Amino acid sequence: MTDLTRLTLAQVHALAWQVLRAHGVSDPQARAIADTVTAAERDDCKSHGLFRLPGYVSSVRSGKVTPDAVPHLHELAPAIVQVDGQNGFAPLALQIGCGPLAEKARRHGIAALAVTRIYHFAALWPEVEALAAHDLVALAFTAAMSYVAPAGGSKPLYGTNPMAFAWPRAGHPPLVFDQASSASARGEIQLHLRDGTPIPAGWAIDAEGHPTTDPAAALAGAQLPFGGYKGAAIALMIELLAGALIGEVFSFEASALDNHDGGPPVGGELIIALDPARCVGHGDRRRQLAHAEQLFANILAQEGTRLPSDRRYAARQRTPREGITIPRALYEELQRLAGRETT
Amino acid sequence: MTDLTRLTLAQVHALAWQVLRAHGVSDPQARAIADTVTAAERDDCKSHGLFRLPGYVSSVRSGKVTPDAVPHLHELAPAIVQVDGQNGFAPLALQIGCGPLAEKARRHGIAALAVTRIYHFAALWPEVEALAAHDLVALAFTAAMSYVAPAGGSKPLYGTNPMAFAWPRAGHPPLVFDQASSASARGEIQLHLRDGTPIPAGWAIDAEGHPTTDPAAALAGAQLPFGGYKGAAIALMIELLAGALIGEVFSFEASALDNHDGGPPVGGELIIALDPARCVGHGDRRRQLAHAEQLFANILAQEGTRLPSDRRYAARQRTPREGITIPRALYEELQRLAGRETT
Repeated sequence: MTDLTRLTLAQVHALAWQVLRAHGVSDPQARAIADTVTAAERDDCKSHGLFRLPGYVSSVRSGKVTPDAVPHLHELAPAIVQVDGQNGFAPLALQIGCGPLAEKARRHGIAALAVTRIYHFAALWPEVEALAAHDLVALAFTAAMSYVAPAGGSKPLYGTNPMAFAWPRAGHPPLVFDQASSASARGEIQLHLRDGTPIPAGWAIDAEGHPTTDPAAALAGAQLPFGGYKGAAIALMIELLAGALIGEVFSFEASALDNHDGGPPVGGELIIALDPARCVGHGDRRRQLAHAEQLFANILAQEGTRLPSDRRYAARQRTPREGITIPRALYEELQRLAGRETT
Repeated sequence: MTDLTRLTLAQVHALAWQVLRAHGVSDPQARAIADTVTAAERDDCKSHGLFRLPGYVSSVRSGKVTPDAVPHLHELAPAIVQVDGQNGFAPLALQIGCGPLAEKARRHGIAALAVTRIYHFAALWPEVEALAAHDLVALAFTAAMSYVAPAGGSKPLYGTNPMAFAWPRAGHPPLVFDQASSASARGEIQLHLRDGTPIPAGWAIDAEGHPTTDPAAALAGAQLPFGGYKGAAIALMIELLAGALIGEVFSFEASALDNHDGGPPVGGELIIALDPARCVGHGDRRRQLAHAEQLFANILAQEGTRLPSDRRYAARQRTPREGITIPRALYEELQRLAGRETT
């Protein structure tokens, strides 16, 4: 059994911040990343929590990412705002863009945020959830490294290209989903490789384009989109929305540019926010909120269902009291990276 | 072999218009529907072509749809326009909304169109393609009758909920996809029932919630979303965007309201349009268009791939010269419905 270390959420934040600061990441950048890492640990999303910090650090050490980047805000159109991340990590750029996007969405009814020149190494739910906290409906799209074959093809081209969606609720945290357009996360295949277990059919093809359940062959071949050609169409749409539409790279270009230091590739993100109160003629926001609750109640009335994010929200109830755990080896690595004494 | 009748596209349009006019559909409504039906026949999308006309007619005969509805345009916010379809069919409401939506998208960079109180009995690609003709990127979402089980559930709740996307191209018709969030169209299951063949695994569950390949059991049970819980999340998002967000019904409400006359249920549609020239700091539209072409070239460089809509566009090259064919029995039915002499 893995030896675990228990931390409070405040300790998670402090540790993340200290690791980043020890490597020259500016205070605003480090705080924004620590916020994202802490939110992931709070919600028991381990793959985007403290586990990510060595990757952030190596992207600074390799010189790929600018650790003290100051994102620049530009208005491209009355309802379009751009944050140029200036080659820094994504969280600060996203935090800077959220308020202006929310303001534009409230003023115009709908608005978009184009985030460019960022290194995104986290989930998308934090940014759509932040917009839902402004009582906005939000969609987010980002591309990534080239790992997924197009429909009918056999070679990697698309990223695992997640999209996220948030719907604000009254008296509940928002309904949120955040899902890759690949059948599986790349990390899941890597876990099967580590554990010597086959991957499920439908996740990947080998380098010759044949279906495979061998994780090594899958990593050397291509991942498959979820749901066949329909998932591939969504991956293609995300390439366009987070790439050419906002003047950013496609996944295959991000892969070609990357130095493979273990951190994220450069890229962009598109976020669309709608003010629901401005989308109905009657303008009655309470009625609109109550209407959506009827749908959620009808979903939950069926045995075996749950709403997306319910597992995250259950963890969120628990972790402020109980704290979180990480493998002791990771804790010790982070202590070293923070320049702290290790036990 | 089915006995076929060949028609020119002009004859398709005239026949559709005459059938509708003979049943009291107003000239503007009939023209808009005939445009949509003709576009479907032109692109060899038979399931949305002349085959649909008896359903349009029965929805008028049953008193469900207002055949001479005059859609009303409202500005809900600087970047949100609503078309209240006034209980009429969708095509005219969509045609009326397209220009104002395009104008708002160009002015603000992004805009949305909420179409309400419509009866939608066609594909979504005509509306996103119309926006691409204005050099806009477009997304469209609509819900429908309650046929699809939520993730983990076993009873119908969501509609087959299509979404469509269009990306304008230089020198080519736009890249467009238009796909249901169900694993299959309902009509495909009905064809298997008619032909006495099993449906593929993964399309549906029976009334007890067990996977089935029996088309009759599938129609009595529930369809499944494409790609498991990820497709279900997209279906859920579409319920919210085309339902509560714009003050319209969910699929389960549309089903409850419907009189099952063989025509479409009442509902809404959300369309989002972005002006790509306003989404990039450099504002260089030609560079942006050329960039996207690199992605398309990389897709097509892989053996076995094609771009979404390529089959439709191939038909579009062919049908203006060669015309289209429909079963003679359908042709004769339409002649009767048009009040023409039958041969």
